Amino acid sequence: MKRRYAILAPGQFADNAKTAHGVIAYGTDETVAVIDPEHAGKRVRDVLPYLQNDAPIVADVAEALQYQPTALLIGTAPRGGALPADWRAEILAAIAAKLEIVSGLHDMLREDQEFKFAAQRTGVRIWDVREPPETPLFSGAVYHVTAPTLLLVGNDCSVGKMTVALELCAAAQRAGTRASFVPTGQTGIMIAGWGISIDRVIADFAPGATESLVLYAAQSQPDLIVVEGQGAINHPAYAPVTLALMYGAAPDALVLVCDPTRERIGGYDTPTLGYRELIRLHEALLATVKPARTIGIALNTRNLSDAQARNEIERARSETGLPADDVVRHGPDALYAAIAPQFHKGAPCAV
Amino acid sequence: MKRRYAILAPGQFADNAKTAHGVIAYGTDETVAVIDPEHAGKRVRDVLPYLQNDAPIVADVAEALQYQPTALLIGTAPRGGALPADWRAEILAAIAAKLEIVSGLHDMLREDQEFKFAAQRTGVRIWDVREPPETPLFSGAVYHVTAPTLLLVGNDCSVGKMTVALELCAAAQRAGTRASFVPTGQTGIMIAGWGISIDRVIADFAPGATESLVLYAAQSQPDLIVVEGQGAINHPAYAPVTLALMYGAAPDALVLVCDPTRERIGGYDTPTLGYRELIRLHEALLATVKPARTIGIALNTRNLSDAQARNEIERARSETGLPADDVVRHGPDALYAAIAPQFHKGAPCAV
Repeated sequence: MKRRYAILAPGQFADNAKTAHGVIAYGTDETVAVIDPEHAGKRVRDVLPYLQNDAPIVADVAEALQYQPTALLIGTAPRGGALPADWRAEILAAIAAKLEIVSGLHDMLREDQEFKFAAQRTGVRIWDVREPPETPLFSGAVYHVTAPTLLLVGNDCSVGKMTVALELCAAAQRAGTRASFVPTGQTGIMIAGWGISIDRVIADFAPGATESLVLYAAQSQPDLIVVEGQGAINHPAYAPVTLALMYGAAPDALVLVCDPTRERIGGYDTPTLGYRELIRLHEALLATVKPARTIGIALNTRNLSDAQARNEIERARSETGLPADDVVRHGPDALYAAIAPQFHKGAPCAV
Repeated sequence: MKRRYAILAPGQFADNAKTAHGVIAYGTDETVAVIDPEHAGKRVRDVLPYLQNDAPIVADVAEALQYQPTALLIGTAPRGGALPADWRAEILAAIAAKLEIVSGLHDMLREDQEFKFAAQRTGVRIWDVREPPETPLFSGAVYHVTAPTLLLVGNDCSVGKMTVALELCAAAQRAGTRASFVPTGQTGIMIAGWGISIDRVIADFAPGATESLVLYAAQSQPDLIVVEGQGAINHPAYAPVTLALMYGAAPDALVLVCDPTRERIGGYDTPTLGYRELIRLHEALLATVKPARTIGIALNTRNLSDAQARNEIERARSETGLPADDVVRHGPDALYAAIAPQFHKGAPCAV
């Protein structure tokens, strides 16, 4: 049975709620209301037209209940993943109204005494999406997967790696290629209903957890495996997760996702890298374990005009010699068609 | 009060017990017996002459008790960190004899029901060295540390990065430089009495945990901070930990530790990298966040003859133009003197 989500994103729905946006855009569950007092009275479409969604925005959980939600989804992933203190009352109101709680925060809500007791009393399930299962060490079994594996990498967090992965999977399906999306973060998990939040795995086991996801995807014998990326290889905090995905997924090919207007890594003073530097660094690292080539560039031109976007796409193409496009602005089919001939199974350098 | 250790390493003391060897060689606590039936009746010195230690080797905990140990140390770090099933009876015997249990395994012994109840009954403490504290996200505060920071990197796990760090610290002290050793793994923690096993930290927080260690070391205003390294940048499973140390410690300089006889990453088919390739890869990554130069090479020539060792040291020097030596075979003072002029505080590229 599908969930009916009320999405909690107070004060943040417009600008800082990528989990909410992802679930509204791509999730199989329905969103019946968004909770954000800043935009109460509007519809999702009024605030974010590209989501093409008519769900009402309301001030609080009490008001959301008129739309018969079955679950409250925590719709943002704050830096570090901790729970803002003022959301506590809203979550307790949802538990009292017997809504399932679905959270992608680092703080495990079911380990919080107050939430735990409240949930026990009303029989409500708390699903901490980010809580990883136990996973083995990386074994190298992934080197024997027969489907070509594509990994998304990028110039920062929150530039659209998951979106590009989902759009390329959709384009693949339209082209008759059975593509399997591999979720590696909380929003991807909420959308696909399975996966592991690799950033939450103990560091030693992060490549092994990634490997286990690819092996699971391979069981259904897809034609193509598309692994959601995380972070950036020069992100001061999250690069170890990026590297865990690179070595753990053992991809045959990379698609680079960049927001060209992002000059510094979000929250840090570290400059983002250019297309060629990113390609060189990713390929140099993977060459030491199992080589992979970058086969295309997906640009996030949300902050650019049509003309600027065209120029930037052209610049990316001419700088790198690779197919480049914005799969949201122009749809994913052209980029997919340009990269699909490159889906070969590469030989690992040492297996 | 110093501990008196009985070290448990059944069947593994000679070849696969780097925790035991490190604690015997460098720890401030005393080792009164080693438990390994394969070598029972001998002394540590008979099996591993370089440790210069006369502790007896015995068959089991019962036999070790005659040497009045106060603690049982789990002396190996098996791949993946799990507890071999046949050690369970020995640990229970130690708990029954009221020995403190000190473990660096991934499996947390104090979460094991049987050990927990036994320890409660006899009032014994179980110290799971690898259990990390909660640590914050990487903040960049480490960029303001004023002491030059040196990080050890290497061509694989278990090539001697901790040993080189400790030997260089000892050489620094002899040269009148107050060096602070920063432990990042279980053996280093057992030796120094503090630290965090970075491989056990949740991936998102591994750079922040590393940063917190360097900030703590900086509080005592040392002249030099030496950070124990882990893994290798092309280790299929542990490279994310290596990268977390690189970005989290934000070193000013690197010392490369290599076993030149290691052709493949331990447990995997991945080839190890050469000196120049390692230098290039580490420096290329750090250049994107905060630049650091490699200033010396410490070779582990344990598996080479004297002549072979001299040749390999010369080869490393001529290939890289850097000072190179084996700090165990030849002592650390010469290498320390050669690299000490390079301890400058580098400017981060973006703070």
